Formats: sequence, C-alpha cells, structure tokens
Amino acid sequence: MNVIIVGASGYSGAELARLVASHPKLILAGIFVSEQSLDQGKALSDLYPQYTGLIDLPLQPLNSSALQFIAQHADYVCLCTEHKVSVDLAPQFLEMGKRVFDLSGGFRLSSDEDYQRYYGFSHSQPELLAQAAYGLAEWNAHAIAKAQLVAVAGCYPTAALNALKPLVNAGLVSDFPIIINAVSGVSGAGRKANIATGFCEVSLKAYGLFNHRHSPEIARYLNHDVLFTPHLGNFPRGILETIYVHLKEGVSSEQVTDAYQCLAQEPLIRLLGDKIPSINGVVNQAFVDIGWQQQGNMLIVMSAIDNLLKGAAGQALQCMNIAMGLPAHFTLVGGQHD
Amino acid sequence: MNVIIVGASGYSGAELARLVASHPKLILAGIFVSEQSLDQGKALSDLYPQYTGLIDLPLQPLNSSALQFIAQHADYVCLCTEHKVSVDLAPQFLEMGKRVFDLSGGFRLSSDEDYQRYYGFSHSQPELLAQAAYGLAEWNAHAIAKAQLVAVAGCYPTAALNALKPLVNAGLVSDFPIIINAVSGVSGAGRKANIATGFCEVSLKAYGLFNHRHSPEIARYLNHDVLFTPHLGNFPRGILETIYVHLKEGVSSEQVTDAYQCLAQEPLIRLLGDKIPSINGVVNQAFVDIGWQQQGNMLIVMSAIDNLLKGAAGQALQCMNIAMGLPAHFTLVGGQHD
Amino acid sequence: MNVIIVGASGYSGAELARLVASHPKLILAGIFVSEQSLDQGKALSDLYPQYTGLIDLPLQPLNSSALQFIAQHADYVCLCTEHKVSVDLAPQFLEMGKRVFDLSGGFRLSSDEDYQRYYGFSHSQPELLAQAAYGLAEWNAHAIAKAQLVAVAGCYPTAALNALKPLVNAGLVSDFPIIINAVSGVSGAGRKANIATGFCEVSLKAYGLFNHRHSPEIARYLNHDVLFTPHLGNFPRGILETIYVHLKEGVSSEQVTDAYQCLAQEPLIRLLGDKIPSINGVVNQAFVDIGWQQQGNMLIVMSAIDNLLKGAAGQALQCMNIAMGLPAHFTLVGGQHD
Amino acid sequence: MNVIIVGASGYSGAELARLVASHPKLILAGIFVSEQSLDQGKALSDLYPQYTGLIDLPLQPLNSSALQFIAQHADYVCLCTEHKVSVDLAPQFLEMGKRVFDLSGGFRLSSDEDYQRYYGFSHSQPELLAQAAYGLAEWNAHAIAKAQLVAVAGCYPTAALNALKPLVNAGLVSDFPIIINAVSGVSGAGRKANIATGFCEVSLKAYGLFNHRHSPEIARYLNHDVLFTPHLGNFPRGILETIYVHLKEGVSSEQVTDAYQCLAQEPLIRLLGDKIPSINGVVNQAFVDIGWQQQGNMLIVMSAIDNLLKGAAGQALQCMNIAMGLPAHFTLVGGQHD
Repeated sequence: MNVIIVGASGYSGAELARLVASHPKLILAGIFVSEQSLDQGKALSDLYPQYTGLIDLPLQPLNSSALQFIAQHADYVCLCTEHKVSVDLAPQFLEMGKRVFDLSGGFRLSSDEDYQRYYGFSHSQPELLAQAAYGLAEWNAHAIAKAQLVAVAGCYPTAALNALKPLVNAGLVSDFPIIINAVSGVSGAGRKANIATGFCEVSLKAYGLFNHRHSPEIARYLNHDVLFTPHLGNFPRGILETIYVHLKEGVSSEQVTDAYQCLAQEPLIRLLGDKIPSINGVVNQAFVDIGWQQQGNMLIVMSAIDNLLKGAAGQALQCMNIAMGLPAHFTLVGGQHD
Repeated sequence: MNVIIVGASGYSGAELARLVASHPKLILAGIFVSEQSLDQGKALSDLYPQYTGLIDLPLQPLNSSALQFIAQHADYVCLCTEHKVSVDLAPQFLEMGKRVFDLSGGFRLSSDEDYQRYYGFSHSQPELLAQAAYGLAEWNAHAIAKAQLVAVAGCYPTAALNALKPLVNAGLVSDFPIIINAVSGVSGAGRKANIATGFCEVSLKAYGLFNHRHSPEIARYLNHDVLFTPHLGNFPRGILETIYVHLKEGVSSEQVTDAYQCLAQEPLIRLLGDKIPSINGVVNQAFVDIGWQQQGNMLIVMSAIDNLLKGAAGQALQCMNIAMGLPAHFTLVGGQHD
Repeated sequence: MNVIIVGASGYSGAELARLVASHPKLILAGIFVSEQSLDQGKALSDLYPQYTGLIDLPLQPLNSSALQFIAQHADYVCLCTEHKVSVDLAPQFLEMGKRVFDLSGGFRLSSDEDYQRYYGFSHSQPELLAQAAYGLAEWNAHAIAKAQLVAVAGCYPTAALNALKPLVNAGLVSDFPIIINAVSGVSGAGRKANIATGFCEVSLKAYGLFNHRHSPEIARYLNHDVLFTPHLGNFPRGILETIYVHLKEGVSSEQVTDAYQCLAQEPLIRLLGDKIPSINGVVNQAFVDIGWQQQGNMLIVMSAIDNLLKGAAGQALQCMNIAMGLPAHFTLVGGQHD
Repeated sequence: MNVIIVGASGYSGAELARLVASHPKLILAGIFVSEQSLDQGKALSDLYPQYTGLIDLPLQPLNSSALQFIAQHADYVCLCTEHKVSVDLAPQFLEMGKRVFDLSGGFRLSSDEDYQRYYGFSHSQPELLAQAAYGLAEWNAHAIAKAQLVAVAGCYPTAALNALKPLVNAGLVSDFPIIINAVSGVSGAGRKANIATGFCEVSLKAYGLFNHRHSPEIARYLNHDVLFTPHLGNFPRGILETIYVHLKEGVSSEQVTDAYQCLAQEPLIRLLGDKIPSINGVVNQAFVDIGWQQQGNMLIVMSAIDNLLKGAAGQALQCMNIAMGLPAHFTLVGGQHD
C-alpha cells in the first residue's frame, strides 16, 4: 500500500515515516507539511539526523499539485496535523476514496459540544464523528478493519484504556471516579519552538487539571468516570500512569488477575502482575506494560508506554496493519518480522 | 553553638555541613562517619568537589576518641545515619547532655510495632519515642524548642503535611483516604554504590506501594488516613506531590483558601493559589511551594520541595534555629541573612 | 547604588537580578525588556518560579518614560541584551552619565572589521571600543574601576583566559595555536523559543567551528593564537574546557605550577593541581576550577565554570563590586558575606 | 549458528543478547555469568525490563556443567567479561574448537609489556596476541573471516579509527600527534554498583589523561601517534569524538574528501561532509557518523557512534556476520533485513 503522511515533520509524523519506510507491505509514497511550513523542501533527515541515509525524502508543501499526487498515488493518508487541521483535511481525502488515519484528536469525541468545551473550536464535520472508528487496536479491530476514517487513539488514553478496560468490562470497579495520575515525556508536546519545552525550562509539573482533552476520550471509551491529571516529565519519550481504582466491595486479587487474562495473548501487551513498570522498560518499544497491586478494595494499576511508538505512530501502524488484514503488531515487535 | 554531624558523607549530611558552615551562629566542629566507612580521612571536598575551599574538614571515624571529643566540644549532634544506627547512637549523646537532631526515621513513629512493620527492626529505645519532638518546623516549634531529642521530619512528609494540615485542621476533608502521588529525585535514595540508582538505570517508576515508611508518619501527624505512593524520578533533587483530596460536601473554594491562610506568614511556605508548582521552582531553595485547584468536592493539591534543602538538612537547620531562639528560616532564604 | 537591568527576562539578566537583589550595597531599581517583548508587565517570577516571593518586580518596557526613570534613578545600567542592541543602547546611558556594564559581546573586540566578520554587523560606535574596559575581573580590575563602560567578559573566554593567561604571561607556551575544546550547558544559548534548544533536540554536538565570536575575544586578551571549538552539551548550566597546550621545549611541571601561583590568592579561582574539574563542581557557584596534567611538553588544562554565575551575571557583579571599591568576589562566595 | 554469551548481564552483553536473539541466522543458545555473580538464576528481563517477553532466558553460572554444555552446543562464544577474565577464558573455548569473539581489551594490544603498562596485569597468553584478528569490521574483514579468535575493537577506537584511517592511509596527516577529545555516555563504564556512575554524581569530566587503554589501541591500528583524552558525559549512550588533525602542508579539501571515498560504500558509515554529527543522530543505531571542516592545514573531524550498538555489541555482531560469510551489516540497519 502507498502511504502518505501529512505533518511528517513532527515527532509523531517522523516516527510514523520511519515505521512505514521499513514495513515490507507499505511504501512511503510522500511526506508533506503545510504550505506555510519553513521545513518544506528539507529532507526529513535534515530535521532528524538519525534518519540520514534511511529516509532522505523531501518534505513537500501540501499544495494543489500535492493533492493531485495524493489522489493518484496514495492508498492510505495519515494525518499528523493539529486537531483543527485534521478536521478540515479529512473530508478531502475521504472524498478521494482514501482511507484516512488521523493521529490528532479531531475525530475521537462524539459531539460538537465536546469539541467546543475541550478543544476550543466548533467541529466543522460533526457528521463524520459517528463514522470514525476509534483506533484503539487491541479493542476495536473489527471496526477499524472496515472504517474509511480511523481516529487513532491518543497517547494517554492508550495507556489508560488498555490498563482499565479489563477491569471495567469485568464489572469490578465501584462508582467512584478512577484517578489517573499520568506523566508524559516532552515529545508528547510536539516539535515546535516553544520556551515551555526548552531544555532549561522543563521540569516535572502538572498541567491541564480537570479539563485535559484526553479526559473525555478516556471516559467515553471506558464507560466510566475518571479524574485524569497529566504532568510534563523531564524525559523525552514515554508515559507512566499510576492509577487508583476503588474496586467493588469484596473483589479478590484472583478476580483482578482473571480480568486481565483477556489481554494475555496480545503481543503488544505485557502483563507484569505485581511487578512495577517503568519508562525505561518501554521506551523505543511498542509495548504497553501493565502492573498492579491491591490492598483491600484499593487497586493501584501502573501502565507504561512509549508515547510515540505505542501511542501515536505505533497505534496508527497497528490500525493500518489491521486494515490490510495483517496481525496488528506486524513489524512492531523488535526484529521478528516473520 | 558547636555542631557535629554523624554521617556527613551522605547527601543530607553534606548539605547540612554546608548549611552549618555558613551559618553565623553555628560552628561546624566536626564531621564523622562510621568506623567501617571507606571515606574516613577524606576531606568532604574529596567527595563533593563543589565544597573545595569551602569545607575542607576531614571525615573522621566515630571511634572512642571521637566520642570524647564530642562529649567535650559539641552542643548539637546531628545524626544523618541509617535508621537503626540513629536509634542506637542517640541515647549515648543524650546521656552526654547534647541536643540531638536525628534526620533518620528512627524516632518518628510511636511504637515498636510500627518499627517492626515499616522499618523491619525492633526498636531498642521505645521509651524515647514519646520524648522525641517531631521536627516539622512550621507546626511544632514549641515542642522543638524544648526537646532534647528532635525527630526531624521526613522529606515526603514535609511536602505532604505542610500541604494537608491546613485542610484537615480546618475540618474540610471527608473520611476517604487522601491519595498522595509523589515523585522524588534520586538523591532521596542516599549516596551509595547501588545499581538501581545508577545513571543508566534510573527511570520514572513507583516503589513501596501501600507500605512505605513515610505512610504511617504522614498519617500520624495529619490525623487522617492516606494512601501514599512514592515514585523515583529521573532528576537529582526535588519532590513533587500531587494530592487528591475528597472535600466534605459543599466546601467552597473560599473555605479552602481561608484554610491556607494559617501559612501565609511562614517565610518558607509559598502559597501559589491556582498556579502550579514545579521541581524547578524549588530546587536549591528551602521553600515549600503549594498550589491547588478544585472541582466540586475534589481538590487537587500540589506540593513541591527540595528534598535535601527543605526536607532533611533544611528542616534540621530550622529545628536548630528554633532551639537557639532564632527565626526558624534564619539563613535559609537566599542571601538575606539579616 | 541603584541598578537597572535591561534584558532581565533572559537567563543572564534574571540571574543578575537575583544577585543584585540580594546584595547589601545594591538596590534593584528596575528591570526592563524591549518594547516588543511579550513579557512586559509580567513579574520576573512569572517567568522564573524559583524567584516567587524573592523578586516580584514587573518587567517594564524600555520606552521613553523608562528612560526618564533610569536617567533620574539609576547609577549602574546592566545590558543583558543582544549584541547589536547593546551597541545601540550604550551611548544613551553613557550620555546620561551612568556606568554601563554590558554583558553582550558588543564592546569586546577592537575594530569594526572584527564585528563585521564575527558578529555579522557593522559597529555603529567604533570610537567606544577603545574606551570600554574589558570586564575580566581577576585580570583587569584597575581599568574596570575607572571605566564608564565595561565590556563584561564572555562566558567561554572567562573559563579560557583564567586558565591560560598565567601560562602565556609566564612565557611557557610555544607558538602553536592552543586548542580549546569547550562544552557549554544549554542556558548559554539564551532563553528563547527555539527548536534547536528544545528538550528533545539537545544532544552533544560541536558548532561554530573556526569562527565562533569568542575565538577572537580569547586571542585578543590572551595575546596568543587559539583554535576554539565550542559544543552544546546536554545539561542546563556550566562550561567545561579541555585545553591542549604545547609548552616550550623543556618547561617543567614546577614552572607550570609556579605560573599558576599568580592566581593562588584569588577567592573565586580554585587551583586543583592534578585533580580534574567537573561541571558538578562549579554549577550554582561563582568559581573557576582549574586542573592540569602534563606529559613531556604537552599540557592539558581543564577549566570549569558556571556559565551564568561566574560567566555573565557573576562576572558583571564582580565588575560592579570593583566599581564600588569592594572586593570583587563580595557576596559571591556562598553565605560568607562579611 | 549457536551463540553463547559469557558476561551477558552487563550492558554490552545484554545488547549483544538482543542482537543475537533477533538474528535470523543465529540462535542464542545460552547466557552466562560468573559463578560468583548475584545475577545467576535471574532472567535477563529481570535486569532489563525492556526485554520482558523478548529474552526470558535465565543467566546461568559458568560452572563445569556450563562448560560441557558449551562444548557440545555452541559454535560461537562471545566474551563480555573483564579484560583479565577474557584472557583466562579464551584458551579454554579455543581448545574446544569454538570461534571466540572477545569484547574486552584482552587481545587487542601486541605485547605483554603493553598489558602491564596500560591494563595493569601480566598477560597469561601472550602467544595468542599474534593470532587474534582485530575486530574492526570495516577494515579487517579478511582476517576476521579466518580467525579463530577475534579481539573486537574498543568503542572509542571504533569511532576514532573509522574517522582517521582514511586520512592516514592517504598520507595526508603530518607528524604531529592527532588530538582526540572524546566524550562517552555512562554505559561505557559498565553495569556495576559504583558511586562514581550514580545518577547524582555523573557530570561531564575528563579521566585517564595520557594513559587510557584505548590510546595504544588507536595508535597501533592507525600507525600514527595520538593524544587521546576521554571524558565521561551525562548521557546514557553514545560517543562523540572531536579530533584535531594537522594535515601536511598544502593538503586541499578535495584531497580530504577523496580520502573518505574509501568508506562511501560502507553501509554503516555515514559521511556527513561539513555537516556536524551529534549523539542523537546515532544513538540506538549502528552507524558511525563522520563530519569534518578544514581551515588551512588544520582539520577538525567529528565522529559519533552508539558505544554499545556500533561499538561493543554491534561490532561483535559484524564480526560474526563476517565469520558466517554474510554482509557485515546484516540485521544492523533498521528494519531492512533483506
């Protein structure tokens, strides 16, 4: 399949370009940036020296000739663009008959009201919200396989939902909001000139209390109330979530362990039991590491991912694999392609 | 006053040596390590190059001639030793009539049972537990001023108690356990050869779930149940606690703000209101930065300190200042000694 | 003395504001930014949370009423501005009769040609170049004491010149260019929104080969040819220079040690002999740590400073101390003000 | 081929285990540690959580039954052990008829005198020194292909020799010693409990001036005198060398560029021309990035590698690939196995 990536200069886009370029069933047919971008004309390896000799494709402006090229040559269009840009671009590519994989939050929530509240803009394509399949590979493969438009899951929700859906689905969780204390590496903030993510400025701190965009996304797909508090951490990649779950009265540790068995065969999920996940354990890998410990009816679940490689780009590749009828984890487990 | 420090080679001890050496009313009369230590005979600046020319005192073994020297020359004895070592050493210095400031956890809990459960040893001096004043400077100055033995508050409890006592004391908090999600810099683990704190190994991860020693310490002095979950963070100094408090039904944001007014005049407490504290804001300073945001009856409080300079060494210096009748923060607010 | 700082929002300016605010003989009378700055009206502590409660002065635009205020109230004007801005501003303040301490490179070289070559602009005040005293405190106190305009030494030159002038002045160095391999923390690049200094981008690498601005500055004040190669390092503060010196045939290690004796009484210079300096040894301190080892006629000298606190702001404060007739290191050695 | 690794618990050994385990022509037949090691019986993934589910083999003690197992089942034996241990172990495995790939420095120098001087021990197998092939894959494939014992090149020499041999071989370099200023990530110091490599201690600083073990190794295989100065850097992986070369009088930049053409077809060498290599460009990859700039007869060459993945483990895998008659870079260029 021919894949093009719009917004390939950012961290998610570049990571996805790498994954596509080394995938035996995909061809990286083009990488694009906005017409305003100062990066147009540069090779991706000018921005990311690690790709020198591996991906030397130039970043091209998404102008009308680019659109023509895409119309003729692309099968899959990946949007690594700002939320609002994705919302505006997706219909064009859908009309061309392309399958669209959107890595932004532009199609993850269910209503324009939610977009006004959490994203600060009115959604211009509300009718597409119902059509988009939520791109959480381990949980929604059937819908992803058929969908023309996939709203690839957010990075924080990827870590949270894989850790919590087994418990909620098994009916083990009481009505209290689940408290999710999350810390993300700086790449989660994207690649842009910004004092706040400057080397001398970054320092562990919370942000987005009570109103982060991933809060309604998690709640929607979990079917449970959550209190989600993200933090910026002083490391480049990775997410660690420490999650406080009030179990229903009398839930045993066996019930908890049993609930997680639904994930036991998932190649990208590693169930650590009472061992404790860490950022180092997952960075540069596409795994979700999940560990848990219980005392009485309080369960602490810890979930770790690489925000770019299981979140964002990795999740998008899983969705493309599913769309092609391949195993979702294809090429994502180190070195074992066959 | 003449101060000696036992265990001066560690991070807390060395920081305290620096604070004492530059204090106009204190004299650093001697620095000691155990008789087994490989550091004996070295200058403190051999271990800490930053102290070159500032503190070149040698680390001496705590042998019988050292004890004689201390008996004759010291007024204050600071113990920066392992918990059990502190418990064994403190009585000797108390019998000499010295005032003892113990930076370990050896005298912070109330019963031998607690030591067996949380510290893994049976306490050899249980009768001293009732005599020790808890060294949390902003809250217990009266007892500290009179005490012969001060159990200097732990670093995590320093951040937690300053942030939570105003709320609990004002009767605003419901019965649910308060959830404290804490991240500490690596210096909190002490200075020792240890693979786990090696440069290539450290990575954000939880530890001590449900049973960390600071859990009963916080609960004891807060008079409220807590669920305390510490994490190791990938930075050298600092603690950030993100605290989830279920307020009683109907508690208003004004009531919360009013509750914190009890700390408004404390020179080492900075009440940030709805601003968000960070590690960078407090590192190398002796402040507690406290911020909070509320939604309904859920209050998120964030508390940040430098674990060595408001926790550990700074807290110990506050206690010594109080013992001398000086303002607790004397010399601890940058450059304004008078 | 009343001090005002122009460009106080940057790393050097903010550090200098802190030093001035806690200095018993100086008053921080005002902090200014350009009229275009988005930071105007903010408190310095909005940008630097560590200063909360310590420096809450607002950053004011440098407009005509600001100039009037400065004319009436300031004694010393510190310029922490871009090179060209400093060149344009200095004459105004000199005409007001103020003493000007310029932390930029605007007055460090000797000719317009040098500015065109190394700074990329034609110097608008070439006649001031001869009047400016070079602000390298340990070496030029006499000129600094009398000067109306002080060109505060650059950070790399501060580390290099203190390490090398003793050797060159003693006539020990052969004619070969001295090779200076330098690594600076990211704060040396200033505080601005810039992808290159973003948290996920910084990585050890060389820059400015053969043509960095500090190259002619070092050569000018050393009277010796140098090959200076700076690198960006992945730490926030500090400079380490590893310097390769071809000694004249037959120079003994005693001669080298003797040469350094000219610095033995300098309170801010620490001569480590054959011990090896490190960034940790100097960060957050105003020292220059100098160590050296010799084999045959090859001498390796290592010099470490905090780029903001011995370079930049610290060096500027030394110059102001000298201007006031105080010891140059006054308030710069931790905690010992008297 | 069946590969066993002795010393698999260290950073090089574990990296090599990963490379072997994912190699289609190699089988990881066993991983061993010394009989004294506290890690015996542990899974490799207990030490390296990133390998969970990928390599769960247990670390076994190298006792007599292990030796029997190796005698029967192994084709290739990789030694990731201390220098002296390698020297003692290699003959045993050679006598069994195994091909031995030694990642230590035990067989890289030419004489017992050199081992006494640079390694501090007398070499027990001096006759093997002449038989060992130097494992610098790009330069010595012919000898590696035939050798029973391969002395895999050191990490610093890998970066230095690939950058310098083209110039020396082309006869462009004057007689002056080449100055190599090198900075290595902390993993280069190995995985052991050590205060000096503790998270709070690591800071950029030089070590091993004039006498580092890699100095004679570089000089031997370069046939040129070098002054090599290593530094410890505050990052986990990677080496950057900034190299100062005095060219012969009149050597042009074309001659330099031409000299490097001998490497232009090497898949793991990236010639950057006047672009500047960085640690980020090579980390987690098996490339050597080489850039250079010239002024007059001074040439600055910059060379960057991942110390574990082009140095150490990657270099060893290249040697095994050569021994098997495969392209040296087989499986080492990301995702393109065929």
